[in-house]
Amino acid sequence: MWTIENYPIKELASGENLSINTYTIKGHAGPHIHIQASVHGAELQGNAVILQLMEKLKNKKINGSITFIPLANPYATNNKHGTYTYGRYNPVTGDNWNRNYVDVVKASGFDMQQFVADNKSLPWHELRLVFKAELDHIIDSHIQKLVDKRLLAENNKLNLILQKLAAKADGVLDLHTGPVATRYLYSAEYEKEISYYLKFKHILVIPDEFGGAMDEAAFMPWVHLRNELEKHGRDITLDIESFTLEFGSEESFCMEDADKDVESILNYLKYKGVLEEEPESFSGYVCKLADYRTLFSPHGGLVDYHFKPGDRFKENDVLASFYQFKNLDPQDPIQSSRQQFKATTDGIIINRCPSSAVHQGMELYQVMTNLEEFQL
Amino acid sequence: MWTIENYPIKELASGENLSINTYTIKGHAGPHIHIQASVHGAELQGNAVILQLMEKLKNKKINGSITFIPLANPYATNNKHGTYTYGRYNPVTGDNWNRNYVDVVKASGFDMQQFVADNKSLPWHELRLVFKAELDHIIDSHIQKLVDKRLLAENNKLNLILQKLAAKADGVLDLHTGPVATRYLYSAEYEKEISYYLKFKHILVIPDEFGGAMDEAAFMPWVHLRNELEKHGRDITLDIESFTLEFGSEESFCMEDADKDVESILNYLKYKGVLEEEPESFSGYVCKLADYRTLFSPHGGLVDYHFKPGDRFKENDVLASFYQFKNLDPQDPIQSSRQQFKATTDGIIINRCPSSAVHQGMELYQVMTNLEEFQL
Amino acid sequence: MWTIENYPIKELASGENLSINTYTIKGHAGPHIHIQASVHGAELQGNAVILQLMEKLKNKKINGSITFIPLANPYATNNKHGTYTYGRYNPVTGDNWNRNYVDVVKASGFDMQQFVADNKSLPWHELRLVFKAELDHIIDSHIQKLVDKRLLAENNKLNLILQKLAAKADGVLDLHTGPVATRYLYSAEYEKEISYYLKFKHILVIPDEFGGAMDEAAFMPWVHLRNELEKHGRDITLDIESFTLEFGSEESFCMEDADKDVESILNYLKYKGVLEEEPESFSGYVCKLADYRTLFSPHGGLVDYHFKPGDRFKENDVLASFYQFKNLDPQDPIQSSRQQFKATTDGIIINRCPSSAVHQGMELYQVMTNLEEFQL
Amino acid sequence: MWTIENYPIKELASGENLSINTYTIKGHAGPHIHIQASVHGAELQGNAVILQLMEKLKNKKINGSITFIPLANPYATNNKHGTYTYGRYNPVTGDNWNRNYVDVVKASGFDMQQFVADNKSLPWHELRLVFKAELDHIIDSHIQKLVDKRLLAENNKLNLILQKLAAKADGVLDLHTGPVATRYLYSAEYEKEISYYLKFKHILVIPDEFGGAMDEAAFMPWVHLRNELEKHGRDITLDIESFTLEFGSEESFCMEDADKDVESILNYLKYKGVLEEEPESFSGYVCKLADYRTLFSPHGGLVDYHFKPGDRFKENDVLASFYQFKNLDPQDPIQSSRQQFKATTDGIIINRCPSSAVHQGMELYQVMTNLEEFQL
Repeated sequence: MWTIENYPIKELASGENLSINTYTIKGHAGPHIHIQASVHGAELQGNAVILQLMEKLKNKKINGSITFIPLANPYATNNKHGTYTYGRYNPVTGDNWNRNYVDVVKASGFDMQQFVADNKSLPWHELRLVFKAELDHIIDSHIQKLVDKRLLAENNKLNLILQKLAAKADGVLDLHTGPVATRYLYSAEYEKEISYYLKFKHILVIPDEFGGAMDEAAFMPWVHLRNELEKHGRDITLDIESFTLEFGSEESFCMEDADKDVESILNYLKYKGVLEEEPESFSGYVCKLADYRTLFSPHGGLVDYHFKPGDRFKENDVLASFYQFKNLDPQDPIQSSRQQFKATTDGIIINRCPSSAVHQGMELYQVMTNLEEFQL
Repeated sequence: MWTIENYPIKELASGENLSINTYTIKGHAGPHIHIQASVHGAELQGNAVILQLMEKLKNKKINGSITFIPLANPYATNNKHGTYTYGRYNPVTGDNWNRNYVDVVKASGFDMQQFVADNKSLPWHELRLVFKAELDHIIDSHIQKLVDKRLLAENNKLNLILQKLAAKADGVLDLHTGPVATRYLYSAEYEKEISYYLKFKHILVIPDEFGGAMDEAAFMPWVHLRNELEKHGRDITLDIESFTLEFGSEESFCMEDADKDVESILNYLKYKGVLEEEPESFSGYVCKLADYRTLFSPHGGLVDYHFKPGDRFKENDVLASFYQFKNLDPQDPIQSSRQQFKATTDGIIINRCPSSAVHQGMELYQVMTNLEEFQL
Repeated sequence: MWTIENYPIKELASGENLSINTYTIKGHAGPHIHIQASVHGAELQGNAVILQLMEKLKNKKINGSITFIPLANPYATNNKHGTYTYGRYNPVTGDNWNRNYVDVVKASGFDMQQFVADNKSLPWHELRLVFKAELDHIIDSHIQKLVDKRLLAENNKLNLILQKLAAKADGVLDLHTGPVATRYLYSAEYEKEISYYLKFKHILVIPDEFGGAMDEAAFMPWVHLRNELEKHGRDITLDIESFTLEFGSEESFCMEDADKDVESILNYLKYKGVLEEEPESFSGYVCKLADYRTLFSPHGGLVDYHFKPGDRFKENDVLASFYQFKNLDPQDPIQSSRQQFKATTDGIIINRCPSSAVHQGMELYQVMTNLEEFQL
Repeated sequence: MWTIENYPIKELASGENLSINTYTIKGHAGPHIHIQASVHGAELQGNAVILQLMEKLKNKKINGSITFIPLANPYATNNKHGTYTYGRYNPVTGDNWNRNYVDVVKASGFDMQQFVADNKSLPWHELRLVFKAELDHIIDSHIQKLVDKRLLAENNKLNLILQKLAAKADGVLDLHTGPVATRYLYSAEYEKEISYYLKFKHILVIPDEFGGAMDEAAFMPWVHLRNELEKHGRDITLDIESFTLEFGSEESFCMEDADKDVESILNYLKYKGVLEEEPESFSGYVCKLADYRTLFSPHGGLVDYHFKPGDRFKENDVLASFYQFKNLDPQDPIQSSRQQFKATTDGIIINRCPSSAVHQGMELYQVMTNLEEFQL
């Protein structure tokens, strides 16, 4: 029922070889789901969610299969500067670990026109299979090409292994967290309605485009296929999804919270038919990427945050106060050293900077504005 | 009433010169109090406490004088690795910023025997003045010697400037925080009873000895003097104190919390007679340094912390659970990957590691055991 | 003759404000040259070159004007992790300091079509002036827009100030270094022949396109203008250049080397007519960006580099040996632990990794292949 | 003939377990030599020396045994901040990896008086054996005590394993490098004459005391024993040595250099009788620790180093020039921005800072003064 595979992903200077494990459970016929956690090394809660999910599946009947990859980027999780985990960027190159995936269909020069010309009449469930097989081949060739040309940089290797694994899936869930954050998810435009089944109160809708992240790398081949099929007059509704789920704040691992967090994925598994139960209904808020705003710090100073992730705010609310000690007049200490940072719109706090020592230009908050309600 | 002075403390490679400001308020005759914050760059709450204290003093009558030094180590506060502040250690040398102060009486080779022989018959209030003048001179000479020999390393300069300023004081308060911490303070043995006036629930009593920290650097000259006087048969009760106050967790700056935190220092100022009110009574717990234990992590893994700073625990309580994914059996995921970390004594959690990604041997918790109650 | 201006570029958490100085010398009528150094904080040699250049200009007659900006990114130069300078990436965001400039014409939505329609008949020397004035306005508006929307992230501020200053220039020289590197420069396709006057032996030719770097940010507005003019049938030869000059290795500052390095810029100033002497002839090698290859490390291990920057190599030469101690057989220690890294083409070493402790996937060498000789 | 053993030394957050390998060659009866490299993670050359030494031993007859431990601290070697290896300090605690060894005789409370009382009449070769057995037991007990009390911090584990291995040896060689450095070694006072056999031109003589380093941790038990035996009127000449050998600069691994470096150790093996050849004679310079001076930077700025490791200098020589751009007068650029750093004594450069971007107070040079010649 369970199979475990080990993939070496990075040989270190000392000769140790870091690796990832995949844990796959297979049941009756059904879709394949791919769930990974901790591509950003400090984002740990997804691993707790995976454990809870495995636990819930103990005595459940499964249709299809699920692959779990906890601690998908051990190099990043092990990388400490002080007690904190420097896990968002490759410490050598500064690269964001979730911006170096590849739009393999494009990068490989795959001839999608020809593929669609050849296969456009297949029923979708067959076409899907044929294309998955193609994808597997495309990624293998792409890796081999990079190896041959010595262009396989460290991010590529890990990224392409994960992409290859995810390319087999009908549902890809990439488990992340924010810095100090509420729970929210990223959904592509085309899969927005399905994302509601994940029971996240805050949904960020991104275009069906590529920006280097895992979720995009997983859905882009299908988007390219859909677009090409459209040109041939065939409209299909993609039944393959890829989401990034943000389970709260980084550096935290809490099994008790995970016990609630896991409900989101269970509901999605019900929707997908992997679990034979009715998915539950849900309501929350949707925000378009264009309305998701990073508020950069206009000053340097010490920051008193007045709102926390999940809080709603109104235009003109004081979101934070900056204290600039170089301006301090001891006769009027608070007033003289304080500058207030006010909201220019209504919205909801999603992320905030985990430190109160802030340089000018740092990310202070990320907020959703122009929220729309959704109801499943 | 207020005077502001600026001290350059570090010229940077780019040529900028970082500096600290001292803000001194003087009233009628009375003791001098020295209050500094943020020698560890990520420990910010002391600055909020200073602001609130200045605010409270706005219309108060003062006996004596108080010097405030917010952001006493700007280089450390500005030092970022990721969004967090790498503020505990000098990034170049690894030195803990609060372990490089100097026991100046010893380091300078000051002839305490001669000094006491010459001055032992002075009344204490005069002897105190004479010794303060000596101390000022000792520190100046020590700095000059290091400059001449090109031995003034970066920590020394900042440390010695702060020591020189503190050497004028009858009360020194060094405002720190823990990593993720409850509020507690460090008191030397000789000043334990006075520390109760600071209204901290948890008091850690350290020996009257030198270990490199600011509080020790400030009280050691007086301890040396007291010890030498004792040899001449004169017992004095030191009325000069030096405490390290730990105001919660690092990276946090909260004016609302500071409004409560400041009550501690106000009460001390009342005790010292700087403010003309009766100090309030208080009760809490005292722990000896030998009973203050760092619990190092016996494993590497992801940690679920079951207790938070301020919580009391009993022997055999599970303080934390480690999840080691390399041991994971997907058929029994939680049980197979979990190792429990149990308390071997009763105690109270003071600090915990701010990350759940923990390597073997890292500091997991710091706890007080064998607590004694105190009642002021 | 000289004017000095100061621009604050980053307010720090502690309240200090880092700033840059511009030093401008003005002579008779003539072109304006912009020279900046150390946008990457560890790349120091350009500052020595600036000093030597200022020194050479002491008693020289100048046509036009030159602006010098040494230490253009003090935050990056001051950022230490250990004794080395972590100066290539923003320590908070991982962003490469030289990849966040803006293609302002595009980003601002400037109506180039209209502009060219309005001004296409102007003689080039006038059109150039009019467009420079436009550019200045475009950048100001772009900055204001970001400020208003609180989107001025830390890199933006510094980058846009530098772009605004460079937008006034007829020649922009951005002084960098490699990690461990030989001297080489980046030239756009359109300015290739002029780059020869800079007397660098190795010239890397990049397309007339935008990739986020300073040199591109400075020439892109002119490339856009040229392209639009072409559509209107007007072919112009751009006489505004922008180059990145790589003066050897990072962390090094050597005035003696700079005394030779400065000859390159002096020759360019002669070509531009800023100095009234005949430029000297020169010969060297040109490589297209497509032939400039990063060789990523196929293994982890300790590396013995057999070639150094500036060295030529042949196909099948052993460029480096990897020693992997986990493979060590003590009976045949060298053979068993060694893997050889061979060249697959002829070429010349430009950069190499400054450390022999190398993880799989790290950049080992950057090499030029398919070199063409040039002769001025 | 060869045995290989593996010791896990650190379980990481991701669950990987870093380990070290020992490679031991045994021949006929004779002394045991312990050779380790890279306790500081960026100090790589010792590993090349170990490989070359193993290679030389291929067909040699050995008396006694040698244990090799290459890459003795893999966590440190793998720790990157940028392309450089942050290998000198534990990134979590700031601890210097070579300052946390333990003076086990003292730390364990071993009753040396009793031991000497019991064994003082044994012939030295027997006493040596008995004490080695004691030592092994002392270290085991000490480790167990730390484990039981959860006091085994991460440095302790690695350090104590290495100490336990070294405690079996009659000669301990800890292979290090400086930052940018010449070749030199540390010898204790008692073993000074023997250190000459190592054929290092520069010998730094340290007291027979404990300061936390490996070499000291290895010789201190014997120094304690010798001192106690002296009290009982028995003078012994210790024939157990422990040296720190500094093989040039960090980040470098060069087998060609190692081929020469290895001559030093081969000569020592001859002296010890492990190899059956006559050791060669040698001459060089000795400097006492008190005459080994760190020159701290009196300014911040860019530094032009005029001397390199191995160079001799005279009083008043300009060792380095500082360039402070905030002082720059463009009319007299070099003169106005330069400050010269002059030698106050004669001496020889041993180490220098690897970066020219230097903050006030950083270590600029380490120099030997008052050199004495030695002749073997």
